Amino acid sequence: MPSSPTTETSAARSLRRLLIGPPLRSRQISQEEITPVEGLSALSLDALTSVAYGPEAIIVVLAVAGASALHLVLPITISIVVLLAILVFSYRQVIDAYPGGGGAYAVTKANFGPRVSLPAAASLVVDYTLTVAVSIAAGVGALTSAFPSLTSATVPICLAILAVVTVLNLRGLGETARAFLLPTMVFIVGLLAIIAVGLIHPLAVNVPQPGQSQLPTHGLQTVGVLLVLKAFSAGCSALTGVEAIANGVPLFKDPKPVRAKRTELLLGVILGAMLLGLAVLARRWHIAPRSGQTVLSQIMGMAVGRHWAYYLVSLTITLVLALAANTSFGGLPVLASLVARDNYLPHLFALRGDRQVFANGIWALSAMSAALLIAVNGNTLTLIPLFAIGVFTGFTLSQAGLVVHWWRNRPSQWRHRAAINGLGAVITAVATVVFLATKFTEGAWVVVVAVPAFIFLFVRIHAYYDRAATTLGLGLIPAKPERKPCLVVVPVTGVSRLAEHAIAQALSISSQVIAVTVALESSDTDDRVEELQRQWRQWDPGIPLEILRTEFASVAAPLVSFVNDLRDSRHEQIIVLIPTVVPEHLRYRLLHNQVDLVLSNALRACPDVVVARVPMALGTSDGRPPGGSGVPSAKPRSD
Amino acid sequence: MPSSPTTETSAARSLRRLLIGPPLRSRQISQEEITPVEGLSALSLDALTSVAYGPEAIIVVLAVAGASALHLVLPITISIVVLLAILVFSYRQVIDAYPGGGGAYAVTKANFGPRVSLPAAASLVVDYTLTVAVSIAAGVGALTSAFPSLTSATVPICLAILAVVTVLNLRGLGETARAFLLPTMVFIVGLLAIIAVGLIHPLAVNVPQPGQSQLPTHGLQTVGVLLVLKAFSAGCSALTGVEAIANGVPLFKDPKPVRAKRTELLLGVILGAMLLGLAVLARRWHIAPRSGQTVLSQIMGMAVGRHWAYYLVSLTITLVLALAANTSFGGLPVLASLVARDNYLPHLFALRGDRQVFANGIWALSAMSAALLIAVNGNTLTLIPLFAIGVFTGFTLSQAGLVVHWWRNRPSQWRHRAAINGLGAVITAVATVVFLATKFTEGAWVVVVAVPAFIFLFVRIHAYYDRAATTLGLGLIPAKPERKPCLVVVPVTGVSRLAEHAIAQALSISSQVIAVTVALESSDTDDRVEELQRQWRQWDPGIPLEILRTEFASVAAPLVSFVNDLRDSRHEQIIVLIPTVVPEHLRYRLLHNQVDLVLSNALRACPDVVVARVPMALGTSDGRPPGGSGVPSAKPRSD
Repeated sequence: MPSSPTTETSAARSLRRLLIGPPLRSRQISQEEITPVEGLSALSLDALTSVAYGPEAIIVVLAVAGASALHLVLPITISIVVLLAILVFSYRQVIDAYPGGGGAYAVTKANFGPRVSLPAAASLVVDYTLTVAVSIAAGVGALTSAFPSLTSATVPICLAILAVVTVLNLRGLGETARAFLLPTMVFIVGLLAIIAVGLIHPLAVNVPQPGQSQLPTHGLQTVGVLLVLKAFSAGCSALTGVEAIANGVPLFKDPKPVRAKRTELLLGVILGAMLLGLAVLARRWHIAPRSGQTVLSQIMGMAVGRHWAYYLVSLTITLVLALAANTSFGGLPVLASLVARDNYLPHLFALRGDRQVFANGIWALSAMSAALLIAVNGNTLTLIPLFAIGVFTGFTLSQAGLVVHWWRNRPSQWRHRAAINGLGAVITAVATVVFLATKFTEGAWVVVVAVPAFIFLFVRIHAYYDRAATTLGLGLIPAKPERKPCLVVVPVTGVSRLAEHAIAQALSISSQVIAVTVALESSDTDDRVEELQRQWRQWDPGIPLEILRTEFASVAAPLVSFVNDLRDSRHEQIIVLIPTVVPEHLRYRLLHNQVDLVLSNALRACPDVVVARVPMALGTSDGRPPGGSGVPSAKPRSD
Repeated sequence: MPSSPTTETSAARSLRRLLIGPPLRSRQISQEEITPVEGLSALSLDALTSVAYGPEAIIVVLAVAGASALHLVLPITISIVVLLAILVFSYRQVIDAYPGGGGAYAVTKANFGPRVSLPAAASLVVDYTLTVAVSIAAGVGALTSAFPSLTSATVPICLAILAVVTVLNLRGLGETARAFLLPTMVFIVGLLAIIAVGLIHPLAVNVPQPGQSQLPTHGLQTVGVLLVLKAFSAGCSALTGVEAIANGVPLFKDPKPVRAKRTELLLGVILGAMLLGLAVLARRWHIAPRSGQTVLSQIMGMAVGRHWAYYLVSLTITLVLALAANTSFGGLPVLASLVARDNYLPHLFALRGDRQVFANGIWALSAMSAALLIAVNGNTLTLIPLFAIGVFTGFTLSQAGLVVHWWRNRPSQWRHRAAINGLGAVITAVATVVFLATKFTEGAWVVVVAVPAFIFLFVRIHAYYDRAATTLGLGLIPAKPERKPCLVVVPVTGVSRLAEHAIAQALSISSQVIAVTVALESSDTDDRVEELQRQWRQWDPGIPLEILRTEFASVAAPLVSFVNDLRDSRHEQIIVLIPTVVPEHLRYRLLHNQVDLVLSNALRACPDVVVARVPMALGTSDGRPPGGSGVPSAKPRSD
């Protein structure tokens, strides 16, 4: 492929190469298969890292009722862990039912058709975006808890992490990053060890923590059912991500479903242990919200002091949360490409970029997440209510889909399986309703608006593609193409080698060629027109020159109406060839007055007219002798 | 002219119409002629309004030597008024010599040739930009002195005023705005009245002013020659703009030179009176720099109190300073068009827009001024040193040009005239050197860098246009155009009415047509290729289908190399027709995957190949029966 100096500057191309890398062949896409332990880092980081914001969400809700309400963190966490167990068993069944990798979109599309799969797709889009935003915000929260001086730069740090993740994925390294085992293991082992140290109380440091307590002392709420439900639903944000393994079954080594189910169980055990351990410690140490300190950072600081272990695990948490955000970059672009293939999203999302990744989906996810992070100022807690609703809608839909699946196929023990999925569906549905009811005014309405908005968009796009397919006669064999005679119009600004070049090409297309020029009205118009006609006669290129006079400043308008008149009055196919100077370097392009671009844009409005710009390279030899008859004219000027 | 839904959305077009207005005919440009008093508002506002920053610039310099140095404001102002008188007489002679309107560019071009006219043009560009920035910043300074709560919004207010002035000029109303007599008269009469009230002391209020005094009490400088020279050169910023009347002689009623000279004299008297009056009051009341208060605002507040007269004149000052900025918008675009006609700036600047104004020059001036205002944070004092240098360079060049003019033409009293201009040239040259020496590190270096940078740019642009004119054979009669046979390439994605439409047009151009499609490598490539070939045989459009397989994700690269190979191996003119779907509404454009745009951009890199996108309107009838033989194919999809 030749270099293309006119489409991208060499500097821009070099920068792009540096960031994104050279194009990849399709066979260069890695197709590694993973083990259950690798599955934890590849597919479960989103779920595991929710310990960074789940317990905090409970405590923040309880804190509005004062210190006395904080002991409720333990029973609420226990009920969340019970729900986790139900979800884990449900998703193990999803793996059995859809070993091909059944995301909520695929499961609901197969069982309920597009009417239900579109809500699933819409809530998945919202979820993936929220996962990115929440994970990055929580990761930066861990970082600023460890290094409070960074707090004022929260949003820029969030955006920088997002930029790194975006570039990695545009390079096609997202998959590789998802397989980073080491930080995942440091995170799991380190956090479990810190919890263990905290539980074996004598070893724990239990020192005062930095930051001010944010426990209210006035206007306390009483502890009621509503508050408990609110705390429960907020804590359910810790369950987000447990569905990811079921979506990624094809990534595992054979026997895929067995290994995937093992990973799901492993995830459930580790996540459950972490949540329970953190809840016990939070209750024991009366952990309350503090300014500039996450709950997790307080517990870690109390357990081991702000020493190397605290800083190591804090930095690891930031890293694994960034990797958790990265998980969504594996999900949304693929989902968008599937939805686009079903004609519910622009086909752009189904195109692979130079690096074989769905680059448009990556850009879209990055843009939406950045907007969200800026809108909430990098604050995790603002995002939690939005987050959990979408996730739980997805839970409910795919659990319900599974019930239908078992009822239709009736394998052995189908009643038993349907019961588990049914229980999962009911509980998550209840949790979703609680969320909506309790969090509606705190941001949940955004999801309630966004999901139907996306569905509406999908439906409109589909309707358009249906109409387009009909008009284009897609799927039908069209009539045979018919030829017509051609008439070529060449707009010129004067007698020059540029005009000669374009007219030569016009004559190659058809013997019917008209040159046309626009004369802007001014004091010396008549002289200029006469001089041009004199030069034209002297040159005698064998075609007529039409002169369009105008009192307006635009050269495009008279030309467009001239071409429209021709098209209406004659039966030939009209072709407009616009002479275009292509300077040797891009930086000289601004020196040409771009009339060719203005004309070709304006002429695009004429239906059934073919418009081409005829490039003439400047500064490179075009293989013909320069000059002509050598008669100088009055004013040497180039335009 | 038909509506053009594909180049601009109707909303964008409506907004544009609302802001800029409908296109104007060339004869609709107003050609009113003005009287000397109108000349004050049309051409002298820049000079008159410099009382808003000139005296302040002197006092700020003197203040570094403490309160005792402030009495020097009067002698320094007197010497500046003497210089003003010399300049006024010099420019009255310029009016005699160049009744056609001699800007510094025209005068120096006529007398010294392009070598000196380019520095003049460069410093004029810098000046016009600085005039806009200084005037707007000083206007907002007057506003925030009157309403201190607005101080924090200084830069946004500056940019808002700039935006209003820009839009007015894009509409072509700049000329009209320059003729606003009322605010100019309120400003002149109001400020002279306030000065008079101040001078008749018993009537003056002399109350304490808001803001903290910024007189230093530590680290005082001693009053030396250098400090006096610095204060003098800073105060010379009050003289900027006295040259404008000489540039605008053709605007006056007959006898033009007489009326212009009368205006110049009127300007000198009023400006001199204001400067002297303000200096007397500043000395009497020991005016020192204060935070959030301009010197002019302090004097006005002391003279009449912060009552209606103070607020009325303050608001008028803001308005007339905005109108002074507007003066530059009448100057720079015209200058840029002249320089562009001489091939020293891109020809874009010589094109008139729909409203018959030089829109590109207006945009360029607006962008440069906005950048400057943001860079100095809307602070007038930072701009003053930059400002005066450019203006004084222009003074010196055109005075010196006049001396040459008198010496060449030797009219009656030429020695006398040459002496006045020579004195003006020498004094302004000395002032320029003082400026440079004293203000170099305080920002004057920017001008020292910018002017040669502009000159370098002009020279490079000129050299390019010379080369382009040679290559294009401008001024020569070119050879007769030669015709060649054509080969048309049509990239298709499948069998559809879109392909039929493009192939029909290709067959109209030439009987040699090749259809070509790119098959991206994937697991089912062979099946897809086979199916396409089967459909092609079934359709039988009479032309061969070439299939290009690629392992990369780009469809452009294989097509570009196919076209390049064709061009190298065959002697025909190659034409590529790219089928393009044009949806009925712009908003649907994103739903088509833009491959046509990607291809036409990529193919632009192939020299001597004509590339055209063949539009097929979707949703409008194209006059042919829909469908075809009616055989459905496997996958209805549109791309």
